[in-house]
Amino acid sequence: MIWWEDFKVGECIEMGSHTFGADEIIGFARQFDPQPFHTDPAAAKDSVFGGLIASGWHTCAVGMRLTVESHVSRTKSLGSPGLENIRWLKPVRAGDTIRYSRVVLESRASASRPDVGLVKSRWEAINQDGELVMTMEGWGMFGRRPSP
Amino acid sequence: MIWWEDFKVGECIEMGSHTFGADEIIGFARQFDPQPFHTDPAAAKDSVFGGLIASGWHTCAVGMRLTVESHVSRTKSLGSPGLENIRWLKPVRAGDTIRYSRVVLESRASASRPDVGLVKSRWEAINQDGELVMTMEGWGMFGRRPSP
Repeated sequence: MIWWEDFKVGECIEMGSHTFGADEIIGFARQFDPQPFHTDPAAAKDSVFGGLIASGWHTCAVGMRLTVESHVSRTKSLGSPGLENIRWLKPVRAGDTIRYSRVVLESRASASRPDVGLVKSRWEAINQDGELVMTMEGWGMFGRRPSP
Repeated sequence: MIWWEDFKVGECIEMGSHTFGADEIIGFARQFDPQPFHTDPAAAKDSVFGGLIASGWHTCAVGMRLTVESHVSRTKSLGSPGLENIRWLKPVRAGDTIRYSRVVLESRASASRPDVGLVKSRWEAINQDGELVMTMEGWGMFGRRPSP
């Protein structure tokens, strides 16, 4: 079990990577972001992006999955009030392998709930060429270690 | 066709609504946010949320789809550099009908690309009881009306 107390400011949590296939990019975008440069390889080639790119929401959502699978599934997660500074810095293209990490920026106990702590993090997503493709920041709420 | 010049500061664009079914909430969360209060109705009932709730990413992604379907599909959309101030203010529960709108906050021509303009917007998502459940802000890039 990972408790709020176990998140240390400055700690970097490596969360693993994901390769974005063309079919998956198109599938997500048809459901949630049906713009031609996300859904239609031919139209995408003629767009400013020069080829199919993943929806920024898809890049973020995969980061969320890896956040849960890598460590949040072992916490008592209480959700998040929101996020700041989402930056889609470079396109994520079909075949790109994106590696995700999370750095702990701040940590504080809840003023109103003695069993809850908050953690502010910065997520980074980096492609196979070492280029930063997405960053975001935000607070998560976690259960605190019970007193013995 | 909707050009950058057609987005007016202060304008509110109603984008329609979506009812979140339990199966759909679980399906999204299994793929992208597999926390028990998003994927398991029984565990969700015992959680702080008291029942199944949609992933915040799901609420946002549906907003993106409605943004595209309601009007962005008729623009020359050039994507977005990022977002600010995503706030998940209230849980979205199975059966909730969420209405989405977009207010134009700012508009400016691109300094470097004469055929491009930028629009800053605030998205709002409101449930069937009139409660704000999600807000976010960010810039989008759009093609400008060609000179005659």
